[in-house]
Amino acid sequence: MISLNSHPSGRHFLQIPGPTNVPDRVLRAIDHVTIDHRGPEFAVLGQSVLAGLKKVFKTEADVVIYPASGTGAWEAALVNTLSPGDLVLMAETGHFAALWKSMAVKLGLRVEFLAGDWRRGADPQRIEARLGRDAGHEIKAVCIVHNETATGVTSHVEAVRQAIDRSGHPALFMVDTISSLGSIDYRHDEWGVDVTVAGSQKGLMLPPGLSFNAISAKALGAAQGARLARSYWDWQPMLAINPTGYFPYTPATNLLYGLHESLEMLLAEGLENVFARHRRFGEATRRAVRAWGLEILCADPTEYSPALTAVLMPGGHGADAFRRVVLEHFNMSLGQGLSKLKDQVFRIGHLGDLNDLTLCGTLGGIEMGLAVAGVPHRKGGVQAAMDYLAETAKNWQLAA
Amino acid sequence: MISLNSHPSGRHFLQIPGPTNVPDRVLRAIDHVTIDHRGPEFAVLGQSVLAGLKKVFKTEADVVIYPASGTGAWEAALVNTLSPGDLVLMAETGHFAALWKSMAVKLGLRVEFLAGDWRRGADPQRIEARLGRDAGHEIKAVCIVHNETATGVTSHVEAVRQAIDRSGHPALFMVDTISSLGSIDYRHDEWGVDVTVAGSQKGLMLPPGLSFNAISAKALGAAQGARLARSYWDWQPMLAINPTGYFPYTPATNLLYGLHESLEMLLAEGLENVFARHRRFGEATRRAVRAWGLEILCADPTEYSPALTAVLMPGGHGADAFRRVVLEHFNMSLGQGLSKLKDQVFRIGHLGDLNDLTLCGTLGGIEMGLAVAGVPHRKGGVQAAMDYLAETAKNWQLAA
Amino acid sequence: MISLNSHPSGRHFLQIPGPTNVPDRVLRAIDHVTIDHRGPEFAVLGQSVLAGLKKVFKTEADVVIYPASGTGAWEAALVNTLSPGDLVLMAETGHFAALWKSMAVKLGLRVEFLAGDWRRGADPQRIEARLGRDAGHEIKAVCIVHNETATGVTSHVEAVRQAIDRSGHPALFMVDTISSLGSIDYRHDEWGVDVTVAGSQKGLMLPPGLSFNAISAKALGAAQGARLARSYWDWQPMLAINPTGYFPYTPATNLLYGLHESLEMLLAEGLENVFARHRRFGEATRRAVRAWGLEILCADPTEYSPALTAVLMPGGHGADAFRRVVLEHFNMSLGQGLSKLKDQVFRIGHLGDLNDLTLCGTLGGIEMGLAVAGVPHRKGGVQAAMDYLAETAKNWQLAA
Amino acid sequence: MISLNSHPSGRHFLQIPGPTNVPDRVLRAIDHVTIDHRGPEFAVLGQSVLAGLKKVFKTEADVVIYPASGTGAWEAALVNTLSPGDLVLMAETGHFAALWKSMAVKLGLRVEFLAGDWRRGADPQRIEARLGRDAGHEIKAVCIVHNETATGVTSHVEAVRQAIDRSGHPALFMVDTISSLGSIDYRHDEWGVDVTVAGSQKGLMLPPGLSFNAISAKALGAAQGARLARSYWDWQPMLAINPTGYFPYTPATNLLYGLHESLEMLLAEGLENVFARHRRFGEATRRAVRAWGLEILCADPTEYSPALTAVLMPGGHGADAFRRVVLEHFNMSLGQGLSKLKDQVFRIGHLGDLNDLTLCGTLGGIEMGLAVAGVPHRKGGVQAAMDYLAETAKNWQLAA
Repeated sequence: MISLNSHPSGRHFLQIPGPTNVPDRVLRAIDHVTIDHRGPEFAVLGQSVLAGLKKVFKTEADVVIYPASGTGAWEAALVNTLSPGDLVLMAETGHFAALWKSMAVKLGLRVEFLAGDWRRGADPQRIEARLGRDAGHEIKAVCIVHNETATGVTSHVEAVRQAIDRSGHPALFMVDTISSLGSIDYRHDEWGVDVTVAGSQKGLMLPPGLSFNAISAKALGAAQGARLARSYWDWQPMLAINPTGYFPYTPATNLLYGLHESLEMLLAEGLENVFARHRRFGEATRRAVRAWGLEILCADPTEYSPALTAVLMPGGHGADAFRRVVLEHFNMSLGQGLSKLKDQVFRIGHLGDLNDLTLCGTLGGIEMGLAVAGVPHRKGGVQAAMDYLAETAKNWQLAA
Repeated sequence: MISLNSHPSGRHFLQIPGPTNVPDRVLRAIDHVTIDHRGPEFAVLGQSVLAGLKKVFKTEADVVIYPASGTGAWEAALVNTLSPGDLVLMAETGHFAALWKSMAVKLGLRVEFLAGDWRRGADPQRIEARLGRDAGHEIKAVCIVHNETATGVTSHVEAVRQAIDRSGHPALFMVDTISSLGSIDYRHDEWGVDVTVAGSQKGLMLPPGLSFNAISAKALGAAQGARLARSYWDWQPMLAINPTGYFPYTPATNLLYGLHESLEMLLAEGLENVFARHRRFGEATRRAVRAWGLEILCADPTEYSPALTAVLMPGGHGADAFRRVVLEHFNMSLGQGLSKLKDQVFRIGHLGDLNDLTLCGTLGGIEMGLAVAGVPHRKGGVQAAMDYLAETAKNWQLAA
Repeated sequence: MISLNSHPSGRHFLQIPGPTNVPDRVLRAIDHVTIDHRGPEFAVLGQSVLAGLKKVFKTEADVVIYPASGTGAWEAALVNTLSPGDLVLMAETGHFAALWKSMAVKLGLRVEFLAGDWRRGADPQRIEARLGRDAGHEIKAVCIVHNETATGVTSHVEAVRQAIDRSGHPALFMVDTISSLGSIDYRHDEWGVDVTVAGSQKGLMLPPGLSFNAISAKALGAAQGARLARSYWDWQPMLAINPTGYFPYTPATNLLYGLHESLEMLLAEGLENVFARHRRFGEATRRAVRAWGLEILCADPTEYSPALTAVLMPGGHGADAFRRVVLEHFNMSLGQGLSKLKDQVFRIGHLGDLNDLTLCGTLGGIEMGLAVAGVPHRKGGVQAAMDYLAETAKNWQLAA
Repeated sequence: MISLNSHPSGRHFLQIPGPTNVPDRVLRAIDHVTIDHRGPEFAVLGQSVLAGLKKVFKTEADVVIYPASGTGAWEAALVNTLSPGDLVLMAETGHFAALWKSMAVKLGLRVEFLAGDWRRGADPQRIEARLGRDAGHEIKAVCIVHNETATGVTSHVEAVRQAIDRSGHPALFMVDTISSLGSIDYRHDEWGVDVTVAGSQKGLMLPPGLSFNAISAKALGAAQGARLARSYWDWQPMLAINPTGYFPYTPATNLLYGLHESLEMLLAEGLENVFARHRRFGEATRRAVRAWGLEILCADPTEYSPALTAVLMPGGHGADAFRRVVLEHFNMSLGQGLSKLKDQVFRIGHLGDLNDLTLCGTLGGIEMGLAVAGVPHRKGGVQAAMDYLAETAKNWQLAA
């Protein structure tokens, strides 16, 4: 790769909120020779990754793996459970919620989109209220994004589940965990989610190219009557053959090697440790942002994302010019503002394969970038983050 | 990967007709760190692979890349161009043609399936005849498989094009080149194909996980009126952003690194040399099969596949037991018989990253496997293949 | 590596008698990030490889690892045990025995070289006779090469040990196992060898760059009085620190990763299985050579090497021109004739990471190369090898 | 590697002064299949790395490559040029100078060791004075260490050359550049060095296992009369065959792949840019150390090392306990104090494949480690480094 070879000295800091930095162990795993996807060796691999994924979703139910981006798993969730013209209730938490909504419309569904200001998560009360008014049960599904990658806001999934329950409404509950799974605590079974959508390239520390659905018994039942056309995304042939470790069409073998490795890493670290690590990095990052005198996009502290932090640029300064300075001078990629946040925010990914020193380097690159780019700010962000990290390091390591 | 480490000494011979042996160069390329799919470095990569693919498809038209298996590209071809209830004419050449047909039905299309005996390619005359009878142009598309991976039969794409032309029928022409692209001469533009479907894991020498559509202007026009629901597979957002080198949703970055490398390798070898190499390996393989006294499944010598050879087991001997002997004793995977050919044929993949000596080893493993498994045969297959390879080696190397 | 990328399709067949084909597992292992050679993680690695090596040498005594080629381990054996002017008895078995002898002379030793015709191993009787005449014990060491890489002749180490014992002579016994260790049965302790010399790039399936001494108590004793100058090769600082897992100077960390992996592979396959595999490949190769009507260089069937076979070219045909044909047409490297065998023999490496099908490909490349190069021969070599391999395959696999 | 897999999340920071962080490009390069070291492909590689090395040594003279650690190249320098009992003048700059001196004694040389306090470089005036007193030219060589890896002190090589010249003494001038080559400006020809000693695992960004001698014509002349025994290290057979791209004994092929890659990277960045980058990192590091209120070991600012900084622990606090805290809590390896500096200093490697953000992480790990370990210090070290890095970033990037 000529282009990859053009990097200046040292490793690139890939601090976008996904794809995240892929650990060497995972890269080396996907570099193994491709094997026969119908041979006995593959069966062991297939069964192993399907079993491991269930632990990460915290489910005993079915999980399917698609050779596809997360966008494909969104589509799979919809086409397996719904019929043309069905009404779906979605919450506008940001760019990705809006994309999922557009997809639903393209697929022939009707969507009611609970408007939001892109600084808050899905509102359980409004969902409860809306479901309460739907006496005829016209709404077939409630869809929310667990962690809005565009805003750094984490919705309270369990509270939404309780809201649905209080309303006594039978709608399916679907949750996008593309940028939360493997980074933020998530419980498919305990929280009564019907379809969980996930992807490989965030908390699972893999390159993009795999995506997932975790599927409740209720969702499986709905699939039987669902009339949206489906073939590639159809759960049924997957679930029919998966117990043998095989797939109905050629799987992305080498990415599955990587998945096998990343599951081993996550489970060895311990999921609760992984989540605690992300929460700690989130807090350290926010302390840095506040010390700089900049504003965190997420408006509700109970919804701060442990996976990424979106930061508002001070008036008149473009986020994209700032990000370019950081890329060119400090060899770091930060996430851009998307659609209506374009040029107004930058996003700091602090998820995946990351440690205290990588985070110091990341925050250092931002603080120095602000200086080089002439963006008004106070110094001391890295110091504030380090103070917190050092303070919590002792207990932290004991926990890990 | 514990399972991958359990191999006995020496390299596994992966001689199924795909996934094929992935060259070390490609494996090393996909092992590079994942980069920002919205950054400037990615744009160079994206533009480069899109340009390279056009050369391999021999087209000036659009090519799109999906993070998906080849099965996904089948679906993309259909949902972008057709509407519910549309009639499609397909040719039953084997298992994969049958799968594509089943998919079309699942997606809500009507399919007329020109019956075949799985030993021959698509019949231009029957297609012409059928189109000729369709005065009302009810048939919206003709779909054939260029190289039936299940049978080792290559259809005459150009002849089918001419048949359609002679009939004066406006149907779209769609061709599955999943196991031919990069192995067998194929000309999207010259042969007037409207949608070509392809995948990464055969002639392109990549792991599975990428698939492609090459799209004629006529197909693009059809897309405007097509009413099958589509979102993930929708060409339009792809084509809108691809010229910048980017993709509408997260691409499979690391597999794209591999694609970049494999395109470089194919174009450096020269496509015509690549095709000649495959033809030569096909002929050598068939000489071996005949010397063993076994029967080649493909009934028409003008349709012999340069990419794989399916071989009928002599009466009473199961192909799967034989393949197991070969796997356990000689560490080689051969392709199995699929659906109605189950246990009746084994398939020898001779496509992708392969040379004369790998082919000798492959044929040696079969000849020894026949002996170990007690399958009646004559010796001398490897000898016959070597005689041909040696005879043609001089001129061959001059050409390469 | 531009040059490495220029290969034609398919994998290169590296069938020289070392460096041998390095398994992917080993290549991937040496590709891990370099770690602190004074840190706790390294200590685990160091202790592990030192313990594993003892099993391969079949010794309870000390083994040292040099970041050096095998040539360095030759030098280490001499400078640790001998003094300027000491007399050493060496057996002329071929090019490598001659090189070791030249080294001894350069280092200031006197060498008596038992002449040989390069077609036979070291002669126990002549050694016994010579030692018997050395009443004054002027001879300080007897040095032989276990497997002459230049000739494909394996000396009977145990018989030489018995010859020394019968003579009652106190000379040290040193054996070069560079191309035998890990391929041919070898027993440092049981055979009473004082210094065994070995390298990484043959039976251990590693790239070149590591070499070894296994050291008896008697050799350690001799080291105390030995006066050849030594520093890099000095056993003492190595043995002082090795029990902690560390080394007195910076070790070749990444090659040690590879060693760790290859030791795991050898011990998992089982050393006796590894040796049996090599003997079987040697026999298959010789059957091919005889079928071609060519002459095996090794004159004594009890001394045939399981690791390589040197083949005499028929009169008037240069081996190097033939090897070039094989390289250019069949992408295979064969070993050249060295010094006085230059252009007269080619050497077939059948050691290391090799299986039945790789051997078929190897022999196929030679048989086709003979045809393309116009070297007089009979066909049927590959067939003869396959007959033997198939015949022995059933029992073989049971053993493995 | 089980042990390598036990790492906590994120990449290890290997900030010892060598082995340094090996770039992915180099790791991937050494992971290529091993090739025939006597084949045509190898010749291209051999010639290429030999030519590239000359540029890095800034020499037109000969350079030889050993499959050995840097310690081996020390030995090579001595045994090729000197005779038993020769007197050598060495400067005690620290642990590595002392090791080289011990080696010289072991090899049978007499050494006069100009005593030093391990906080300063070689003193040109004392060398000049001593040579001036050596009217009989008993001293055969002056040996200094360019960059003392144990102390972070860089000697003025050119000034020592001028001192020798002023004394009119004919002694050979030998310089150890093991931890300077590729990081600190060095000019073999211009500075009139006779033998330069170097290794792979520092500025050349390779794993350990290769070492080098650059050799002046005067040194080559001396080699003709030198009587220390030598064989492995002998320049002559190397120089005889190197012009063809080959080596007299098996080279460390895979490490040479890495060398090829690292030479490309260094020359693409531009040596002067590489040196400037290291100087900038050295200054940033020292600003951090001073802000912490700690003492830099190097006593003379003109001798500060751009490659590493050794820091004295404040009274009563052990460096090794501190380093352990940093390793366990922050996953970073720092260099230990060696021999008489044991437990008194820690060493920060800031050489090799390193960028601004890696340095921020490194210094952050130290500052947080000081806090966690309860070592008295002031905060603000990272801030001071960042201020300097940001200030110089604009011009810096323009230069690069």
